[in-house]
Amino acid sequence: MVQASICTIGDEILIGQIVDTNSSGISKALNAAGVQVTRMISIGDDHDAIISRLGDELKANDIVIVTGGLGPTKDDITKQALAELSGAQGFRTDERQLEIVHRILSSRGLDVLDINLAQASVPQTCEVIPNKLGTAPIMVFRFPEKKFGHKTTLYSLPGVPFEAMGALEDILEDIRSHYELAAIHHKTVCTFGIAESALSKMIEDWENALPSDMHLAYLPNPLLGVRLRLSIYGCEKEDAVRRIDYQFSKLKEILKESIYEGDSLTACIGDMLRKSCKTVSCAESCTGGLIASLFTSEAGASEYFLGSVTSYANSVKTGVLGVPAEIIAEHGAVSEECVKKMAEGVRRITGSDYAVATSGIAGPSGGSADKPVGLVWIGISSALGTTAFRLCLKGDRRRNIERFASNALNLLRIRIMSELTIH
Amino acid sequence: MVQASICTIGDEILIGQIVDTNSSGISKALNAAGVQVTRMISIGDDHDAIISRLGDELKANDIVIVTGGLGPTKDDITKQALAELSGAQGFRTDERQLEIVHRILSSRGLDVLDINLAQASVPQTCEVIPNKLGTAPIMVFRFPEKKFGHKTTLYSLPGVPFEAMGALEDILEDIRSHYELAAIHHKTVCTFGIAESALSKMIEDWENALPSDMHLAYLPNPLLGVRLRLSIYGCEKEDAVRRIDYQFSKLKEILKESIYEGDSLTACIGDMLRKSCKTVSCAESCTGGLIASLFTSEAGASEYFLGSVTSYANSVKTGVLGVPAEIIAEHGAVSEECVKKMAEGVRRITGSDYAVATSGIAGPSGGSADKPVGLVWIGISSALGTTAFRLCLKGDRRRNIERFASNALNLLRIRIMSELTIH
Repeated sequence: MVQASICTIGDEILIGQIVDTNSSGISKALNAAGVQVTRMISIGDDHDAIISRLGDELKANDIVIVTGGLGPTKDDITKQALAELSGAQGFRTDERQLEIVHRILSSRGLDVLDINLAQASVPQTCEVIPNKLGTAPIMVFRFPEKKFGHKTTLYSLPGVPFEAMGALEDILEDIRSHYELAAIHHKTVCTFGIAESALSKMIEDWENALPSDMHLAYLPNPLLGVRLRLSIYGCEKEDAVRRIDYQFSKLKEILKESIYEGDSLTACIGDMLRKSCKTVSCAESCTGGLIASLFTSEAGASEYFLGSVTSYANSVKTGVLGVPAEIIAEHGAVSEECVKKMAEGVRRITGSDYAVATSGIAGPSGGSADKPVGLVWIGISSALGTTAFRLCLKGDRRRNIERFASNALNLLRIRIMSELTIH
Repeated sequence: MVQASICTIGDEILIGQIVDTNSSGISKALNAAGVQVTRMISIGDDHDAIISRLGDELKANDIVIVTGGLGPTKDDITKQALAELSGAQGFRTDERQLEIVHRILSSRGLDVLDINLAQASVPQTCEVIPNKLGTAPIMVFRFPEKKFGHKTTLYSLPGVPFEAMGALEDILEDIRSHYELAAIHHKTVCTFGIAESALSKMIEDWENALPSDMHLAYLPNPLLGVRLRLSIYGCEKEDAVRRIDYQFSKLKEILKESIYEGDSLTACIGDMLRKSCKTVSCAESCTGGLIASLFTSEAGASEYFLGSVTSYANSVKTGVLGVPAEIIAEHGAVSEECVKKMAEGVRRITGSDYAVATSGIAGPSGGSADKPVGLVWIGISSALGTTAFRLCLKGDRRRNIERFASNALNLLRIRIMSELTIH
């Protein structure tokens, strides 16, 4: 099986200034194409480290994908290191990339500086795949067997995630034309509301009965719940899809409404709403816009998502959502009564079929003995009525906000699912 | 200087199912403590790979921090591999962690299963730091010089980001008590609206004049603009802070309003609003709640953020924000006229001092010849009037939404800054 290593280069990664999202994006694409990623490595903008580490990775893999360190500025030294590693005698200017540099900068109304022009200069030892999205070229170094003991290829991509992801299609096409790729098939389903250990107990018999060529992985995620991934290596696609679907259909019988298909709760909800021509809106206090943001991150959300009100201040709860001031005075903003009125209010002013509302205390400060940090009320409203749910979580602010939002979305998912089956 | 390697373990990382955020969080903390992170590595749930790779990392570093692979389920094998690597004769149950397992599960109303109890079982060769946030223990393996050629320590942390981050303080305390740490100092400032190459040209003289023990790094980020980080290694803290601040003060004279302090645009805006006792609200169409979500991700946002309306449907623009239907009919929702009315509308219904509004086309579909995907109108309203700005970006949906939001926040930042200087 063709094996690959992914190397990200940049001090900003090693000191934790940025999170490396390129590696996961690249490995997702490689796996889907049947290339096995053996490891991911991040190293700094250090000339010697780059050369020695990339050498090791080239020895151990058929393909090495490098991102980062190609910026126009002084701290980016990857290109020079790759020139040495490949024994380049000098550099040449790639005319196609040079043209792109001019086009991009002029489209942004920027002057073309020498350091921009320098980006189109590449080691003589590499082939260039033009980077349509940025000024740094995509470089391909093909090493003969004698260099690292076997035929191996190094692809150098820009570090800007948007450009790195944009380069993947061209990279994969090049890989396909140079390597025999075996098939890997994965399918992931999501579960919500069951702890990983309890889940594994519930599905123990099912898991033990899986065929030996199937591999199950548990992927806990605060926003999505625990996801379950089934993988088959080196099996015909049709066959693999059929067998994985069969196993998941058996899993559904065990987990019932706790399991759902789709990459996210909002994608799953969006599918149900689109198919039933229903709409949704939300009223957010403690989740502060996150639920709306999750809905609208799905392309085509405008078909079913009408809008939302983030009522952070009580004046917005009363003035915009029409929550009676007495309710807030009597029960407080974080209460069953308030969150119900918020859900009904946003459903009324947007005219949506469904509405979800949140009011809670994300922390770190605030809260009281009877209403501690981590407490949230979630309201769900539809033509069939309004219900409210109380949860009390323990986490930091960010985690609380995420789990408030995901629990609200899951309750909405179950409500919509049950109403659709009624009709 | 004490050197560390960070190793994340889990197939879900190698196939790109999840983004590894632990490594950046851990390295940020290690760097701040004066430990230099030499590399980060991700490997799969593969027994042999774990043992050989961790061996290499232990040979090359003083400290190795491992996260992941400690779950209760079958696919997590890190603990067994660490037992072998450290030559453990057997396992023992850690009573303190066992107590935590019981407490956590009962607090969640869950039964304690055998696989939960098994989590408190650890190799006899390790010391345990109780993990207060989860059921998997934090394990410390101290290897004598003869094992890997020098004294080295391996820390094994849970993979769940919330638990891994929660363990850092205890880990750092242990590191400080066992190693002599040198000082590293970083400071980062943000710039917005200047391309990396143009920025480096603008500050070239300043950069060339930096003292030799200072290192400058460029960190492009679609949400924050290009950040600039100055680092000094092995220098007294007071001295380092003074010298870095001096350099950045010179940089401010060059970059003027394009440079700002703080970790994010919303943090910077929040500081200005808090100090001037002003409030803000937003009306979002294409950004779909992201701006509100960014505001409310800051602790204490309720002091200045009143709320927002995500007016995805035109009926919400007219019905809730009071945008005249004629304006949408005549100019369309993505127009200067509409976005101004949106900003004024949300400022009116929330009573905020400032308001920012967005209306654009994020894509992938939609748009027209004169209103293409990537077009956005941004409105800023205050007592001194309402202005609108037009931008046309080229990106995928997610990137467009992020850049719409960040540009809107930056325009708001500059508006508030200029008004505060007037008063």
